[in-house]
This record gives sequence, structure tokens and C-alpha cells, in this order.
Amino acid sequence: MKNWKDNVRKVVPYTPGEQPKAKVIKLNTNENPYPPSPLVGNAISGVTLDSLRKYPDPACDILISAIAKYHGFDKENVFVGVGSDDVLAMGFLTFFNSNEPVLFPDITYSFYDVWAELFRIPYVVKPLDDDFKIIASDYEGSCGGIVIPNPNAPTGVAEPVSFFEEIIKAHPECVVIIDEAYVDFGYQSCIELTRKYDNVLVVRTFSKSRAMAGNRIGYAVGSKELIKYLSDCKFSFNSYTMDTITLAAGVASIEDDEYFKARVQDVIATREWTKGQLSELGFSFPDSKSNFIFAKHESVDAVHIFEELKKRGIYVRHFSKPERIADYLRISIGTDEEMRTFIAELSKIVK
Amino acid sequence: MKNWKDNVRKVVPYTPGEQPKAKVIKLNTNENPYPPSPLVGNAISGVTLDSLRKYPDPACDILISAIAKYHGFDKENVFVGVGSDDVLAMGFLTFFNSNEPVLFPDITYSFYDVWAELFRIPYVVKPLDDDFKIIASDYEGSCGGIVIPNPNAPTGVAEPVSFFEEIIKAHPECVVIIDEAYVDFGYQSCIELTRKYDNVLVVRTFSKSRAMAGNRIGYAVGSKELIKYLSDCKFSFNSYTMDTITLAAGVASIEDDEYFKARVQDVIATREWTKGQLSELGFSFPDSKSNFIFAKHESVDAVHIFEELKKRGIYVRHFSKPERIADYLRISIGTDEEMRTFIAELSKIVK
Repeated sequence: MKNWKDNVRKVVPYTPGEQPKAKVIKLNTNENPYPPSPLVGNAISGVTLDSLRKYPDPACDILISAIAKYHGFDKENVFVGVGSDDVLAMGFLTFFNSNEPVLFPDITYSFYDVWAELFRIPYVVKPLDDDFKIIASDYEGSCGGIVIPNPNAPTGVAEPVSFFEEIIKAHPECVVIIDEAYVDFGYQSCIELTRKYDNVLVVRTFSKSRAMAGNRIGYAVGSKELIKYLSDCKFSFNSYTMDTITLAAGVASIEDDEYFKARVQDVIATREWTKGQLSELGFSFPDSKSNFIFAKHESVDAVHIFEELKKRGIYVRHFSKPERIADYLRISIGTDEEMRTFIAELSKIVK
Repeated sequence: MKNWKDNVRKVVPYTPGEQPKAKVIKLNTNENPYPPSPLVGNAISGVTLDSLRKYPDPACDILISAIAKYHGFDKENVFVGVGSDDVLAMGFLTFFNSNEPVLFPDITYSFYDVWAELFRIPYVVKPLDDDFKIIASDYEGSCGGIVIPNPNAPTGVAEPVSFFEEIIKAHPECVVIIDEAYVDFGYQSCIELTRKYDNVLVVRTFSKSRAMAGNRIGYAVGSKELIKYLSDCKFSFNSYTMDTITLAAGVASIEDDEYFKARVQDVIATREWTKGQLSELGFSFPDSKSNFIFAKHESVDAVHIFEELKKRGIYVRHFSKPERIADYLRISIGTDEEMRTFIAELSKIVK
């Protein structure tokens, strides 16, 4: 007899980094070590209890307007979601409906293949070169879509805008998604390309540079036509994704640009200091433009370092797959004090 | 030449009720007229700004534990999402993967066919009878899934647990989703059936009875196996759907059961008073067990009443499709004062 289990969409889900409950130095999920702007706190306190009984604005007008103004676009060029994962998931669902495969790097955000599997989208992964660089010629020829993070994760390696413009120009037959989760930490954005090409979607998040992972806000910028298609799918899935408090908090973050830029500079300064320390300890790493460093020790095994750090209450991230990154650790940038402790403990482990 | 638009998933999205920005009497989206529990406000204030820089617990442990305990289930029996729309959308995606059609009533929550279209799920709508009752024999025979709200919306008509048990028993080949968005307003829940049958998912929301539409919380109760499949798909879509503040707010609502029950009783009392008034004004309606009344006037046109109320700053909901409900208005239950004003204005319009 037929059973309901025969009709289930069976998948292997994405595994997020650990969220330990004990007090630890948490360098494993690329969170910002600084709190969000105090204006975010004020905005949250300013939401009245009575207003919560009502549905939020499904159009998310205040937040979309703030983001559009910030980047110098119209509201119709902006889409918001529950973190950039929500935006990316909706992008995969909306734009990748071809029989041809979607392309993305072999070493990249490990959610891409999970979304492709979930939505039964054909895909082909393109290996990075030995320096973890994207090989441009791999992205030639007709395909069902392209998705690349810039800077890439977990490597931190970035490509210039011109690199992406060549890819976008060559692919009018598909949508190219550029995932800029980490771009605020000192790299150039492809956002201006969305004015010139109607097939590019640039995705951003409030979780890293804006220190608001706990609030869940992501967004995308693209041509009005692209955003309209994306919104139609979103409104066919869930009309009210963004809650009243989150909308207010997001606007406040955008409005405090001075605070935002200062904290980003703090993270960059700590990252550069950490790079120097890691080199001295015998680590090598691609030159990261993000808020993490993807590092490999010249002699000590990555899993050993990972476990030893964990014993000392310091969490970093290790990916066992693909095999050629199994020797690396992804280390998020914490406060200066956290990184000093980290380097001190690390030096004991690798000596 | 091929164009990226050829690969777009083109859909006609759900249209949510209007969210007017001016101060009006808002009886159009089934919101609760009372604020959430004061404990919800305390919980929101209690979230520190610094904690927002970190990702929330992806397992949503505090909220899932609170809901499980409240209903007397294990954590593994509970799933939470961004409103019940998120839970239902994920349910459609996870469970309705058959080539056989999914069945639901013709007059029902207007999102069901939108989800079916979005995910390319075959479906057949089954007309309610002339009293807006579900015809049990329509749901006989093998199918790809069944989804029914109880009480139904926008009619407010409810069926007893025994009615659903017959359907569930007859369909081991598919998942039966019972959408209990309005069940707290005085009707019996099918939640206990999830202990006995592994193919039934009961979906609930905090948006109506818990007065938290602005927070976006929905949940589902089902067998552990069912919830595992649902969670796997959810974690393949977006790991961090529930933000830190929302998790805390949800727990606080569950913990203040006395407040919750008192406010629900207030809404029920106002609904019963409103029924009497509407009858006197020449309206007929099915006996609603929800926080709205689906009413038709004996002589005055529904669109005329809708427009006249709007001019007077009172918003109700009118559905132009399907045609046989075009004479009805769905009136959400407000405060006593709001309903007195509503009845006073309505009596001028229909006289």
C-alpha cells in the first residue's frame, strides 16, 4: 500500500555552525564582535506592545526605502528577506528554472548545493584553482544560472568588479547572483552593475558587517524587473516575512552610518593584526577581504588545532569536505582582546 | 537568443488584506483587538543589544520547548516558523510531492492554491455545500494530500474532531494538514490526533489568538517522523528563520496563559454580541467559531457596504472570488467599542 512517506521531499539539510550556550570565544560563525548601533536598541524599545497585535507592512516599505536611499536606488530595485539565506533561497526558486545546470565554485558557501537539491535544480560545481581563485573560463557557455560569493567563503578571496562584469555580459540567458555577505569588510561591490545589466542580483546581509545576525535581515539589489519576479515568488510563499521590530531595527542600523563604518574599520584593523600573528605562527592563508581568515598550519593538523582550541573555550570552524580544505580552519575576527587570547592559546598548540 | 526571463518561475502571488496607515477601525485582517501579554513586552526589553550580534539558536529550543510543554508533547513533535504561512508553505513543499492532486475546499484560505502553483503541485478544489460545509465524501479515494482549515476561513464554519479522524484514517497514503489558525476562539482542536496518526500535521499561529501578528510566529504539531521531514526541508531553505527577539517574545506569550485565555474570552463575548446585532440588521451568517463573522445582508449589496464603511474609516474584507461569496463580508472582531461604532455605522448604511 502507498504510504505518505513516498511523497516526502527528502533532503540533507545545511548544517549551521555550532551555537554553544556556555561562555566561550566564538570565532566560528563570522559574527561581528561589536554590538549593533545604539540606535538599533532605541528603535526596538520604541515599538509599542499594542502595535504587535497588527500585521507588519508586507511591503516592508520603511526598510526597503532606507536601503534604497542608502545605495542610491529606487525602492523597486530592493528586496528584503529573513537573512540573506532567505533572499538566496528565494532567488534560487525564482530564477533557476532551466534544464541547464546552475554553476558555482566547489569551495564556497555550503548552502548553494543544498538549495539546488531542495528545489531539484541541476548544478555543476567548478573547482577553484590551487590559490582558491575562480577560473573565469569555467563560467563560459550557456547555463541555467551562476552564483558566486564575493569575497568567497570560506576562503575570503575576492575578485574585482570587472571580473564579474565579463561573466554577466556573457550570460544574458541566465541570472547571475553575486553574494556579497562579506563585501563591507574592505572590498569593492558589484552593486553598480545592477544599473547596467538586468540579469544580475547582488545579495547582502545585516548579519556580519551590521552585527545583526540575531535580527535576521538580508536584502538584494537588482533591476526592477528582476526584483518584481523575486517579490512575486516571495509573496507566493509568505506575505509577512519581516516582523515589526526587525523592520524598525533595520532602518535604525542604516541610519547610523558613522557607527557602522567605524565598527567595520575596527574589524578590518583586527583582521590585519591577526594576519601578521598567524604568519609568525607558521600559518598560511589567502589574503582575506572578509571578517574571517581561512588558514592552514605548516605542520600541525587542523582537526587537532580545532579540538585543542575547543577544549580551551575557543570555537573556530572546520570543514571536512571537500578534502582539499580539510587542512584549513576558518577563523572569524573577534575583538582585539579575543584575538589576543586566541593567538596566545594557538601559539601553545602549534609550538 | 535565450533570455534569463525564460527561466523565471512566474506566479500570481497571494494578496494580503490592506494595511491602512491612517487611524481606522481595522476589521479586515482578523487581528486581535487587544495587545499581547505584558510579559511579551518585558521579554522584548530583556533582550540585550549585544546579544543581537550573534545568530539565534537555529533549533529555536526555548520556543519549541515552551510550545511542546504547553500542549503536553515532546520537543520533537513541534516545528516553528515565521507565521503559520511559513509553516504551511514548508508543509506543502515537504509533503505534497505526489503526481496525484492535493485536495482542499473551493472556499478557504486563498493561499493554498498560491502555494500549489508556486511549487507546481497538482490540486483539485472541492466545493463546499450551500451551507459552506465540507462534503466528507469529496475527500474519499487516494490523493496527494489534503489541507483544510478548522474553523474554515473566511466562513468560520468548523467540523468536529471525529470528522477529521475519518479523513485521516482513510488516507495513510498522504499527509493531512489541519490549519487551526482560529481554533482557540472556542472550538475543539485536532492536536490529539497527532498522537495516534503519523500522517497528520496540525498548524497554529500566534497572529490571531495570541495577538502577535507583528512578531511572525507559527507552529506545527505532528508525529516525530513528520516533524523531522519538515525540519529537514526547513533547514535546507533557511537555518535561522526565527530571530532572537521573536523567540523570547513567543516564550513569554505561552507562559502567560491566564492573560491569553482572558483575552480570547473577551473576543468570543464580543463576537456573540456582534452576531445578535448583525441578525437584527438583516444579516445572515454561518455560526462562526473564529474571530470573524462571514455575513451577507438580505438586500444591500456587499461591495456597497464595503465602500461605505471604508468612507467612514472602517475596513472589513471582501472577496470577489469565487462568485458565490461575492455577497459576503468578512468582519473581524474588534473591541466592544469598535464593534459598537461599526454596528452604528452599518445600521445607517443598510437602512
